[in-house]
Amino acid sequence: MTDFASTRALFHTPEGVIYLDGNSLGPLPLAAKARVADMIEKEWGEHLIRGWNVAGWMHQPRRIGDRIGRLIGAAEGTVVMGDTLSIKVYQALASALDLNPARRVVLSDSGNFPSDLYMAQGLLQSFGRGLELKVVEPEAVEAAIDDSVAVLMLTEVDYRTGRLHDMKALTKKAHAHGALTVWDLAHSAGALPVDLAGADADFAVGCTYKYLNGGPGAPAFIYVAPRHAETARPALSGWMGHAAPFAFDLDYRAGQGIERMRVGTPPVIALAALDAALDAWDGVSMDDVRAASTALCDLFIAEVEARCPELVLATTRDGFARGSQVSFRHPEGYAIMQALIARGVIGDFRAPDNIRFGLTPLYIGEAEVRGAVEILGDIMANRLWDRPEYRRRAAVT
Amino acid sequence: MTDFASTRALFHTPEGVIYLDGNSLGPLPLAAKARVADMIEKEWGEHLIRGWNVAGWMHQPRRIGDRIGRLIGAAEGTVVMGDTLSIKVYQALASALDLNPARRVVLSDSGNFPSDLYMAQGLLQSFGRGLELKVVEPEAVEAAIDDSVAVLMLTEVDYRTGRLHDMKALTKKAHAHGALTVWDLAHSAGALPVDLAGADADFAVGCTYKYLNGGPGAPAFIYVAPRHAETARPALSGWMGHAAPFAFDLDYRAGQGIERMRVGTPPVIALAALDAALDAWDGVSMDDVRAASTALCDLFIAEVEARCPELVLATTRDGFARGSQVSFRHPEGYAIMQALIARGVIGDFRAPDNIRFGLTPLYIGEAEVRGAVEILGDIMANRLWDRPEYRRRAAVT
Repeated sequence: MTDFASTRALFHTPEGVIYLDGNSLGPLPLAAKARVADMIEKEWGEHLIRGWNVAGWMHQPRRIGDRIGRLIGAAEGTVVMGDTLSIKVYQALASALDLNPARRVVLSDSGNFPSDLYMAQGLLQSFGRGLELKVVEPEAVEAAIDDSVAVLMLTEVDYRTGRLHDMKALTKKAHAHGALTVWDLAHSAGALPVDLAGADADFAVGCTYKYLNGGPGAPAFIYVAPRHAETARPALSGWMGHAAPFAFDLDYRAGQGIERMRVGTPPVIALAALDAALDAWDGVSMDDVRAASTALCDLFIAEVEARCPELVLATTRDGFARGSQVSFRHPEGYAIMQALIARGVIGDFRAPDNIRFGLTPLYIGEAEVRGAVEILGDIMANRLWDRPEYRRRAAVT
Repeated sequence: MTDFASTRALFHTPEGVIYLDGNSLGPLPLAAKARVADMIEKEWGEHLIRGWNVAGWMHQPRRIGDRIGRLIGAAEGTVVMGDTLSIKVYQALASALDLNPARRVVLSDSGNFPSDLYMAQGLLQSFGRGLELKVVEPEAVEAAIDDSVAVLMLTEVDYRTGRLHDMKALTKKAHAHGALTVWDLAHSAGALPVDLAGADADFAVGCTYKYLNGGPGAPAFIYVAPRHAETARPALSGWMGHAAPFAFDLDYRAGQGIERMRVGTPPVIALAALDAALDAWDGVSMDDVRAASTALCDLFIAEVEARCPELVLATTRDGFARGSQVSFRHPEGYAIMQALIARGVIGDFRAPDNIRFGLTPLYIGEAEVRGAVEILGDIMANRLWDRPEYRRRAAVT
């Protein structure tokens, strides 16, 4: 049984804050500060360029990829770190399209994170050859999978509502129709059990600054199913993905397996922070995380609905059909969230009217849930959100 | 007059090391450690998600881009940070090709950094439509510019020999023939005066872990000439480059000007290190850097040639025609460099036979040059490189 009291002790929470926004940016793992300082002072400062060899910088993307692989049902050597999630989406989609050259349609849904759709739009326009993006409602995805689809590209957990796609069933249907799949695990990795191998996913990508707590702008990951690893063509063919980067050949030759999904020089400082953050997952069972997270979300829904009838639940009540977050809708969602943040309850707002709360047992417990709802209840009951300073929109929310 | 004694004091050099590899990875700026620690502890730890607003994370890529812009002759608002250099090459090349749709040829040279060529190869294969990469010898570039060329894509300073292209003349000829230019400033930014605006360059890209000392894997930059900034199509169309990232529209609309070259979430921790590193450039004149660097390189060449007749100079003697590095060739270059490193003189080796030394007055002086050559002279005179442990190749060099 995972000891969540121990994992909570690994994170820093500011005084007076209830942090329910780890689905946007995870809190600081206490180990990260020392690890990064050490990396900077001892590795960069003392080893200098030798760090690539003696400090293992060159192998970090694979080593850390394997640590994440364990959390998402990926075999060793199938996950590699680097770039941002948007770039990894581009890579995965390009490779998947190449592996299905007779088809033209990329199928996605309106619950996908917009950046994924944007990257696909840019890619399809660049690649030309009649490729098109078809975006349907999340509920219509299954029915839309047909023999025209080249690639099914979905985010498993909807960033607004928390709705969870059935990765295994949709992948199975996609394969039955000759389509490949690209799964974005941004709100899945570290949030719930993912079984990429069991679901037979073709490609998967994800970020590490949400439930994996790697820090703002932490590097992304990409997974390639072993059956594609030696045939996938890297559209972003950088030297770190070359079969022999330090031979400095003039022609690209794809590296072995997942190595080819590396592009440029790895972000060593950021990877040090992420590596420290991943220590928190040692000995953690994703099934335990899931059970505890479901209970926290159930409690949060029940408490909010009891106190705040004006808020409309945007997340399913079915714990098996959602991620590790709960969203409510309200026309004044933006101002409500600002009022909450002013009182130390940090969630976030997603246009047009969603207030979003991430609840993960790694560092959140019942006390935080009850405390947050008490403040939310007060804000709603007394219309404390109705102030000019809460309605004024900041650049980022 | 730039006070290089003051700038030297801003960097850490390990005991017993003469560091002549800042052209591969710059040394640790003392300010970086505290700046990153502060960012992690106070900004991430205390502000959490609010850091995007209150700590200015969202604007870092532009703010830091402007700091670099000053060093490369780019106007404010024309440079933005993010991703790796390889990704930025892809972006710049894709945009340049799009702006010249009637043409098919990307012209580059064999002195370009291989990753740039690899990225171009991947891009051209993906984009199809008859695009082709033509790679000529560096000396043949000028003659190869004709009316078939869509984009001239070059690295200004050859990573092996230090040979410097004439950016202004080549850009002028390219424009006269209706071609656009993409300049890679990897070995230029912080090494010598660059005048992107004066040279009328169309696009430029560069990394920040070499002469700009941003740390291993530090983020890259991209420059877009103001005349293209509102028309360039971002092929890597991520949400941070969207006109309204937090509207979460389903369709991409390119952001204003250089903003559209942003892709995913910015690497905040790495940018903090880079920001601290850039402090060293406050009050530094690039003309002073150039004069001092030329003198150091001249001295190094003269001393090495006086003591090591077996080494063949691979860099031009003409200080105006090279970057801030000196390379020598020797069939046993690899072993020689290992022997040097074992004695504390750190340069690097570039296949097939180049030993490479970066010399920048920011933290290197005459004493280091003389000290390094003394050790090199001893190694050559006494064949100290001829040991099995120096001939055994490590993964990265």
